[in-house]
Amino acid sequence: MATEGEYFKGISKIPYLPSAGPHDVMCFKQYNAEEVLLGRKMEDWLRFSVCYWHTFCGIGADPFGSQTLHRPWNQGTPMESARNRLNAAFEFFNKLGVKYYTFHDRDMAPEGSTLEESNRNLDQLTDLALQLQAQTGVQVLWVTCNLFAHPSHVLAYAGAQVKKGLDIAKKLGAENFVFWGGREGFYSILNTDVAAELKHMANFFKMAVRYKEKIGLKCQFLIEPKPKEPCKHQYDYDAMSVIGFLKHYGLDDHFKLNIEPNHTTLAGHSYEHDIVMASAFGMLGSVDSNTGSPDLGWDTDQFPMDTKNTTLVMKAIIEQGGLQPGGLNFDAKVRRESTDLEDLFIAHIGAMDAFARGLRNAVRLTEDGLLPGMVKERYSSFAQGLGQRVEEGTATLEDMEAYIKQNGEPKVTSGKQEKYESIFNQYI
Amino acid sequence: MATEGEYFKGISKIPYLPSAGPHDVMCFKQYNAEEVLLGRKMEDWLRFSVCYWHTFCGIGADPFGSQTLHRPWNQGTPMESARNRLNAAFEFFNKLGVKYYTFHDRDMAPEGSTLEESNRNLDQLTDLALQLQAQTGVQVLWVTCNLFAHPSHVLAYAGAQVKKGLDIAKKLGAENFVFWGGREGFYSILNTDVAAELKHMANFFKMAVRYKEKIGLKCQFLIEPKPKEPCKHQYDYDAMSVIGFLKHYGLDDHFKLNIEPNHTTLAGHSYEHDIVMASAFGMLGSVDSNTGSPDLGWDTDQFPMDTKNTTLVMKAIIEQGGLQPGGLNFDAKVRRESTDLEDLFIAHIGAMDAFARGLRNAVRLTEDGLLPGMVKERYSSFAQGLGQRVEEGTATLEDMEAYIKQNGEPKVTSGKQEKYESIFNQYI
Amino acid sequence: MATEGEYFKGISKIPYLPSAGPHDVMCFKQYNAEEVLLGRKMEDWLRFSVCYWHTFCGIGADPFGSQTLHRPWNQGTPMESARNRLNAAFEFFNKLGVKYYTFHDRDMAPEGSTLEESNRNLDQLTDLALQLQAQTGVQVLWVTCNLFAHPSHVLAYAGAQVKKGLDIAKKLGAENFVFWGGREGFYSILNTDVAAELKHMANFFKMAVRYKEKIGLKCQFLIEPKPKEPCKHQYDYDAMSVIGFLKHYGLDDHFKLNIEPNHTTLAGHSYEHDIVMASAFGMLGSVDSNTGSPDLGWDTDQFPMDTKNTTLVMKAIIEQGGLQPGGLNFDAKVRRESTDLEDLFIAHIGAMDAFARGLRNAVRLTEDGLLPGMVKERYSSFAQGLGQRVEEGTATLEDMEAYIKQNGEPKVTSGKQEKYESIFNQYI
Amino acid sequence: MATEGEYFKGISKIPYLPSAGPHDVMCFKQYNAEEVLLGRKMEDWLRFSVCYWHTFCGIGADPFGSQTLHRPWNQGTPMESARNRLNAAFEFFNKLGVKYYTFHDRDMAPEGSTLEESNRNLDQLTDLALQLQAQTGVQVLWVTCNLFAHPSHVLAYAGAQVKKGLDIAKKLGAENFVFWGGREGFYSILNTDVAAELKHMANFFKMAVRYKEKIGLKCQFLIEPKPKEPCKHQYDYDAMSVIGFLKHYGLDDHFKLNIEPNHTTLAGHSYEHDIVMASAFGMLGSVDSNTGSPDLGWDTDQFPMDTKNTTLVMKAIIEQGGLQPGGLNFDAKVRRESTDLEDLFIAHIGAMDAFARGLRNAVRLTEDGLLPGMVKERYSSFAQGLGQRVEEGTATLEDMEAYIKQNGEPKVTSGKQEKYESIFNQYI
Repeated sequence: MATEGEYFKGISKIPYLPSAGPHDVMCFKQYNAEEVLLGRKMEDWLRFSVCYWHTFCGIGADPFGSQTLHRPWNQGTPMESARNRLNAAFEFFNKLGVKYYTFHDRDMAPEGSTLEESNRNLDQLTDLALQLQAQTGVQVLWVTCNLFAHPSHVLAYAGAQVKKGLDIAKKLGAENFVFWGGREGFYSILNTDVAAELKHMANFFKMAVRYKEKIGLKCQFLIEPKPKEPCKHQYDYDAMSVIGFLKHYGLDDHFKLNIEPNHTTLAGHSYEHDIVMASAFGMLGSVDSNTGSPDLGWDTDQFPMDTKNTTLVMKAIIEQGGLQPGGLNFDAKVRRESTDLEDLFIAHIGAMDAFARGLRNAVRLTEDGLLPGMVKERYSSFAQGLGQRVEEGTATLEDMEAYIKQNGEPKVTSGKQEKYESIFNQYI
Repeated sequence: MATEGEYFKGISKIPYLPSAGPHDVMCFKQYNAEEVLLGRKMEDWLRFSVCYWHTFCGIGADPFGSQTLHRPWNQGTPMESARNRLNAAFEFFNKLGVKYYTFHDRDMAPEGSTLEESNRNLDQLTDLALQLQAQTGVQVLWVTCNLFAHPSHVLAYAGAQVKKGLDIAKKLGAENFVFWGGREGFYSILNTDVAAELKHMANFFKMAVRYKEKIGLKCQFLIEPKPKEPCKHQYDYDAMSVIGFLKHYGLDDHFKLNIEPNHTTLAGHSYEHDIVMASAFGMLGSVDSNTGSPDLGWDTDQFPMDTKNTTLVMKAIIEQGGLQPGGLNFDAKVRRESTDLEDLFIAHIGAMDAFARGLRNAVRLTEDGLLPGMVKERYSSFAQGLGQRVEEGTATLEDMEAYIKQNGEPKVTSGKQEKYESIFNQYI
Repeated sequence: MATEGEYFKGISKIPYLPSAGPHDVMCFKQYNAEEVLLGRKMEDWLRFSVCYWHTFCGIGADPFGSQTLHRPWNQGTPMESARNRLNAAFEFFNKLGVKYYTFHDRDMAPEGSTLEESNRNLDQLTDLALQLQAQTGVQVLWVTCNLFAHPSHVLAYAGAQVKKGLDIAKKLGAENFVFWGGREGFYSILNTDVAAELKHMANFFKMAVRYKEKIGLKCQFLIEPKPKEPCKHQYDYDAMSVIGFLKHYGLDDHFKLNIEPNHTTLAGHSYEHDIVMASAFGMLGSVDSNTGSPDLGWDTDQFPMDTKNTTLVMKAIIEQGGLQPGGLNFDAKVRRESTDLEDLFIAHIGAMDAFARGLRNAVRLTEDGLLPGMVKERYSSFAQGLGQRVEEGTATLEDMEAYIKQNGEPKVTSGKQEKYESIFNQYI
Repeated sequence: MATEGEYFKGISKIPYLPSAGPHDVMCFKQYNAEEVLLGRKMEDWLRFSVCYWHTFCGIGADPFGSQTLHRPWNQGTPMESARNRLNAAFEFFNKLGVKYYTFHDRDMAPEGSTLEESNRNLDQLTDLALQLQAQTGVQVLWVTCNLFAHPSHVLAYAGAQVKKGLDIAKKLGAENFVFWGGREGFYSILNTDVAAELKHMANFFKMAVRYKEKIGLKCQFLIEPKPKEPCKHQYDYDAMSVIGFLKHYGLDDHFKLNIEPNHTTLAGHSYEHDIVMASAFGMLGSVDSNTGSPDLGWDTDQFPMDTKNTTLVMKAIIEQGGLQPGGLNFDAKVRRESTDLEDLFIAHIGAMDAFARGLRNAVRLTEDGLLPGMVKERYSSFAQGLGQRVEEGTATLEDMEAYIKQNGEPKVTSGKQEKYESIFNQYI
């Protein structure tokens, strides 16, 4: 295991730092893992997770510029680098005080020249990971396979890779397994047979379900919607697209959704939309807690810092009773200009505090009961009479006509949106 | 019935006009109803329909300006105007040579002060409509209810209105019935109980199904997706959202989709996207053939004039064997600055010609077989061996791993997108 | 003048209401007009203004639905209604405690059947306005002419109308005069001569400047950018478009900008962008403080409630030393579902509080000096040596080459975006 | 010089290929360099240019995936590869029959470990380029400096690099020099001093102007607007932003614009918008002829294939009398899936044909005179009387008022947008 301070020298275990004045950025003013809210510890509501790819593999390159981030763990052969990186990662998890991490197979272990070599690399690195997990108590929130980076892999290769990924998930006790194909879509409708591709994708997922059952893997399967990028169009466009797909192919009992708000906003929705919709359909499994900028049309994977957004997300999570076995995974990267190693801490802590504030706000909203009560009152007509029969599914169009003929037009009541907004503002 | 030329004086029956030089706009250079393509008459592939609301009720107002379009049929009492309008409409259908029309209940007959009065108005106007249909052979492509304009109507009123709408659909022999609520969504997530609203909406649709079956109405039910406007968010966001909703509530056997490309582009998709997706899921019922401008974020309902778009749409329609009992409904309005009566003809003819060109192009694409053959070749690996077992659903992840271990990495073949685009360009 | 409580019965003068618990929406928890911040009273930093059109003329209609808002002042003949409305407006200003208002000519007085009649109507209503202004101390932040609503007005009519508008501005002592044409753009490039229209627009503005000087009107002229809607494209697209236009035609000494953030976001920028850019070019004159939803593509004119946004706006305003003679005009409307009269108060108070919070935050940011100091440090290389000569404009490319040849590559320093974001979050 | 066929074996000189049937993609059905239209050869209207970066340096990587394009010229040391690449490029230009090319300094010669070494590399490669230019007659449309890729370069380095770039431009007889900084903007407003950065940018351009004059370089300076990507916001947002900036800093006599339509659509405008606007302000210098997909929010740099777009662009170019010394530079890349070497030819030829069709269409539009005549008629009121005085700038608001008082309201005439669209469709 990493010696204390080997990679992140000078940064002591974060939660024990004094929570100084307003100028001390690295301080967890809001996040307090052990504090109990609505009968559950804050860390159990939030279940934060650090992602491996951005935080330990990111190099700051963008489509127009080369590497800006040079990390001390990238030394030696690819396998040596991979071991260093894993040690650094656990040092980071430990100092940050986060109990979960997520990774792609190819983040953790370098791709070999053959499938067998790639798998051997994975075996060695996951042996080390298992050991570090045992030493630290840090666990895998989810595993996924990188099926998008290699230039030539075909479906069969993806299948082989996912098979190994599921084995790894079992070995490491992952609580979830995520599918985000990245290339499951098209660049041009002209050279694409959409119906065929959808069917192949469904059949591929069915194979994964069968293999999961065969090996007795208990984790939750998750699909992560994204509307576009790198493809022009991706079949897993948004929460409702995936729900439609899963239900059409009879896969909805085996999958839930991993929602990434930056993908949601790229699909033209508001930040919290897919979280709310997935939850309404009983399909919200986990959240990739990041953000984009609403004026940008690509996936910037910024650290989430907007308390209004985190409050809306935590409100939805509270309403469904929590996110377990899912969590809040920081699929977010420091900007390419944020070249200091400490920026990794600053960014995660800023985001954790933003979510802690969101949680506190949502808890106060819930406990006060003012806004929930106003909403309940707004729908109160469905609690009795004809409204109740609509709710229960026993009303008919004939009933409705009779009601109107007897009662005429009802009085309009104000929707009071600005009142809701003003009250909501008092909680954030 | 309208005397020949009463409202559209000086415009003789359009299809008989000479097809003059390139400068003669009103000429159907491309559209020829009787011509047979792929074994079917052009008019049967296209099944054009004129919409009542824009073409006969539109006044050219926008959120910033008042009425610019003053129509000669708007004279007298509301009921007199309504009769004039219906006569003008049939004069228009007849001269334009279009066999279908679509309408909202409140377009055809004015709303009364009570439901009973509104229904009596509808009865009288639909009597006249039935008579005009019989005289001209023009038929109803679909009926719908305007549930969005009235400031205070509640769910019960909507139910009463839909009940009458279904009665009217039966009376007039409508081939489809469309649901587009317009207000089935929300302005603010803060005052909204999404799960409750989705359930109420599903139960409402179930009532409509039951009443349809009770009265023996044979038409196809259609839902028209729209992502937003007037609401901030509408539950029927796009094709996949509606498919997910219908399948979740067990309604998918009773509904198909009426796709409006201007709504598709507002949802962040390309023009043809929802038509292709709905068709891939066996759910494409009808098309509201219009267009927006890709740089505008609201529903402009312009007449479709882009041949590339119409070619892609007709290609998808040919591939599913036609659109019947649906059609191509021109849910499009002349601009508020297009104040001449003849602009109604110019606009429809321009759009009909654009679709006729699109049909011809798609037919040539199909008959030549070049592009379809290239696509087929691109997916040929799924016709044999492991690919075939994926296609059939019998392959396993273990098979895939074994395949890769035995065969190694396959060679990449070019996707040749630019070749497809260049060839496609030779057809349009 | 309006008797206390004639229209807004039961609502006493707002600022004196007790500032109760968190549940009391109508309470000004944050806004305190008299409080001094950075040497100026809060009301002088904020210079709030109520807009006449939405708040007193709005009826809640949208492109899909009819009137939902029925106001008690709309009674009697058009001129009687106009008088009632003006009395109601001053009652509202007074109870709300706001010192400025803005209006279009046609909001205040109804359009007559001739220009002369329209002008006489305006004369009568502005007589009453002048009297109410004197009684209450409420002043005109700006006047503008509604040149977009009438279906047929031509340029000459607009000229006549603006002439009268300038006379009215002088009569009422308006501090600014705003130009927002609304139709100064096009629906189709095909029927438009862009170069001719730009020249006509410039010449029109020159006429206004000459007339202003002729009558000795002292107010600031402002142009309000908007990218689109109702037109497909408007020439006053955004701040930089207007600056380019003004400078090209030599008009930049006579005009500044009135920035509306909802227009800014429609142009694809972030909320504060045009305010920051206009200020950087010395052209920020006034602000129409409202908001849209980032996921909607039309002008929703919502009340601004996001404290992050208001903080960024107030930071820019503080940095340029205030907004006078401009102000923060609430060009915002209650939602069509917000049908209670009290919603007008709730909405304005919520927005005033949001700006008061934004001001306090920006003041603390400024006084603490932490973030400004970090920014200053980031640009410190321009304070000496070659950087200073760049700043002063005396450096040459040869100097730069010599510098690099002598000094080689400089070390990169972190941009620390996440640190800025985290610190910023501690102020909001 | 490259032996005929060394890199593009089996592809003979393109223009001499038989122009076979509709299925032969690589055939120049539309482009005929020597054909005279409106008194000028087609090649002189179109002035096609191949870009070096995408076509010879592109490797098919995207933010989610690694290299897919493996080119035969990438062999040996960096300098050997660079020589091979240059030979391949001239073989390509020659076979394609294109007379211009464009490049960044770092495309043509690899960056060394010092500025001096980088410059020596450039000297050697441009010696070869000069020789190949002389042999083939192919010329440099424009040169630019890559100031965005290096992770740490500061302003001084950019200055040194631009100095060398201007020297190179002179050496190779470049007709234009383009500035596209790529990083001239910000990722976060929080750590940015916008006013300082704008001033530094202006001063930098002034240094370039002074050096250009000093060395007697005759080429046209061009700025290329882009709204965002890689930065969150770029100061050169769109045509009007750059015009405003140039005029503010007194630089407008020294610069014109290089418009890239994919950047235009990213800025929220229609495809042709910035070309039309730049031309209306006398600032259109050159065009980067590519396209994006309207439903994507990043720069895809696809080959332009839409004839409607190319027609509108060529119409604007004809109206300003051509684009010289600018041209149509294919700043476009084959998709990462288009892995065949021949795809480079297919893509360029498809785009050249699309522009040739656009040119033919625009010429017919111009020669027929129908649409131009309709536009002229639409503005005819500005040719006499009060309209003429507006046009000339001598009218006053008082004149306008007098006119309306005397003449009353004019009659509305139809804008006839759908007629324009229908007629336009008959030309494409």
